[in-house]
Amino acid sequence: MVINSGLEGVVAAATRLSHVDGERGELIIAGYPVGELAEHATFEETTWLLWHGDLPSPGELDAFRAELAAARALPHPAIALLRECARVGVGPMDALRIAAGTISLVSTGAVAIVAKFPTIVAAYGRLLGGAEPVPPRADLGHAANFLYMLNGEVADPERVRGLETYLNTVVDHGLNASTFTARVITSTGSDLVSAVVGALGALKGPLHGGAPGPALDMVFEIGDASRAEEVLRRKIASGEKLMGFGHRVYKVRDPRADVLARAAERMYTRAGDMSLYRLARAVETTALRLLEEYKPGRRLQTNVEFYTALLLHGLGLDATLFTPTFAVSRVSGWIGHALEQQRANRIIRPQSEYIGPRDRTWIEARGVPQF
Amino acid sequence: MVINSGLEGVVAAATRLSHVDGERGELIIAGYPVGELAEHATFEETTWLLWHGDLPSPGELDAFRAELAAARALPHPAIALLRECARVGVGPMDALRIAAGTISLVSTGAVAIVAKFPTIVAAYGRLLGGAEPVPPRADLGHAANFLYMLNGEVADPERVRGLETYLNTVVDHGLNASTFTARVITSTGSDLVSAVVGALGALKGPLHGGAPGPALDMVFEIGDASRAEEVLRRKIASGEKLMGFGHRVYKVRDPRADVLARAAERMYTRAGDMSLYRLARAVETTALRLLEEYKPGRRLQTNVEFYTALLLHGLGLDATLFTPTFAVSRVSGWIGHALEQQRANRIIRPQSEYIGPRDRTWIEARGVPQF
Repeated sequence: MVINSGLEGVVAAATRLSHVDGERGELIIAGYPVGELAEHATFEETTWLLWHGDLPSPGELDAFRAELAAARALPHPAIALLRECARVGVGPMDALRIAAGTISLVSTGAVAIVAKFPTIVAAYGRLLGGAEPVPPRADLGHAANFLYMLNGEVADPERVRGLETYLNTVVDHGLNASTFTARVITSTGSDLVSAVVGALGALKGPLHGGAPGPALDMVFEIGDASRAEEVLRRKIASGEKLMGFGHRVYKVRDPRADVLARAAERMYTRAGDMSLYRLARAVETTALRLLEEYKPGRRLQTNVEFYTALLLHGLGLDATLFTPTFAVSRVSGWIGHALEQQRANRIIRPQSEYIGPRDRTWIEARGVPQF
Repeated sequence: MVINSGLEGVVAAATRLSHVDGERGELIIAGYPVGELAEHATFEETTWLLWHGDLPSPGELDAFRAELAAARALPHPAIALLRECARVGVGPMDALRIAAGTISLVSTGAVAIVAKFPTIVAAYGRLLGGAEPVPPRADLGHAANFLYMLNGEVADPERVRGLETYLNTVVDHGLNASTFTARVITSTGSDLVSAVVGALGALKGPLHGGAPGPALDMVFEIGDASRAEEVLRRKIASGEKLMGFGHRVYKVRDPRADVLARAAERMYTRAGDMSLYRLARAVETTALRLLEEYKPGRRLQTNVEFYTALLLHGLGLDATLFTPTFAVSRVSGWIGHALEQQRANRIIRPQSEYIGPRDRTWIEARGVPQF
């Protein structure tokens, strides 16, 4: 019996949501090349697109924005739970999972889930910083309101556009482990909150949701472009893994890195610390050159984490909120996959091979007759 | 590209935990035929066996029982959350998932999770019935304490033995959807609470955790053995599915049905309503005869749900608690699989085939140039 413990090469679903071509470095989101969609759409449009297959009409978009805006408040016990999480120091992904689980108290719907994720993440971010949560504002869009709840003030349009672009870029990416988790849970006939809470658990894992924080730490550690070569050479020579480079699927440049690099450039140019952007670019260029020198043919390219870190840092987010903010985006993809699974469902139940002992008896084990 | 949306026949893990042979009607739990283990072991012994591969020594067992007993209390916000769940009428599986999620506030350990599941289920069962939760007692075993927390009084040994046997019988069953969910989440490097909470979401689905309640409803509807043939014949002839019969894997009698039938017989003989047991037996015999008459060759046999319902009803459990009580057992299996996955890990990431459109452009869709 062949055991395929990573399920590599096994095709577990047909999907209209996204297509990842790792050899060509392409990502399609519901028909759009990722850059084409990410740089233009609002997150409400992207979410609608994933759930319905086409962009909304102006009337549909207005109604959808209003529906999301009206559903942002958290169930009553959620804020108290987040306070308790902050008090005992629970990690932000666990806190998000715990609070997201309570959405069942008020709704089982897709809109409620997507609407409440930013409220949870922003509230927890503020509580971790010793500040009070800021209630959502219904007159702001999804991305703008998230920044408002994080900072307590309305963000400038460049920052909002930067966040929209980020949210659109990472919203879906084939059958990654969290998306697959959402589909497995849905395949039993379970509900959307259960699917999303399970997916959050998978995204938390360092092999999946990753750690965009360390990529930025490396840039800060280098500090000045003139030191990039020396620091990176020492890291690579000592066998340290360079954070922000290399990907299991992409063998060429991750197309999301380009989109996020452009978004970061625009945002830092108009509303941020341009020297940090230039430093990050210099670090990237040097890292790619040294990786090719030390590991020729390994095709280690800049991945999505490198510019995620730069962009989200520029938006004023603490590194502890990077993965939860990833979830604020990806939840729309999870739900899109769950809806797709519901429409053409078959329970997902692979097999295992038993490699343990057989024919054990209780009397042998316990040495006493049983009556 | 071949799409295997149910992953049937795909072997996704090697395991020492359990082996299901559907053609021969055999279930092995860590080397023991299910009946051999289930009728003798305490649930603490079974849990240790699944996590360590062998039964505990007397000293290990004492220490493990004490450790579990000391970890039964819930985190402070959990009872408040369960009250809120009961107030708004959240289903018992959602309530269990919500409360289980808060275990991260106090622990990430396997023992804490298994220890707290019965406390959550019993507390919610009482709250749904308008009663106050009963705090756990550390001087009782895992099964005995669960019955104590459900009913507020110490159960007689026959009932405790009946529950131990049930918990041992359903503790693990190959790579079912919830167990697979726990392994996928664990494969990202995530934690046990995340894995278990995801698995609960999968178990909730009617295609998996099932509905042992309706099997018993059918017995009550028949009411008297003399009516069994008439009622069942009408149901089958009208195309109604007989609850408690048929299984995706087992083509002969589910070995768990035998174990639970014997446990139910012993328990009802000494501590229950023997007429209900006899009625259930008569219903089963008639159902099997009629299923063979109407659907020859379909090999529809009694499944685990039929005697689960009879046994748990005899233990005084309301039907709404049947699936949560299943989880009280299966959580030990989930954790055993998660530990096994941690020891030989590879991230579980199947592929999808993209069947959507390509090369869409924003301008085409929106009809306006973008700047």
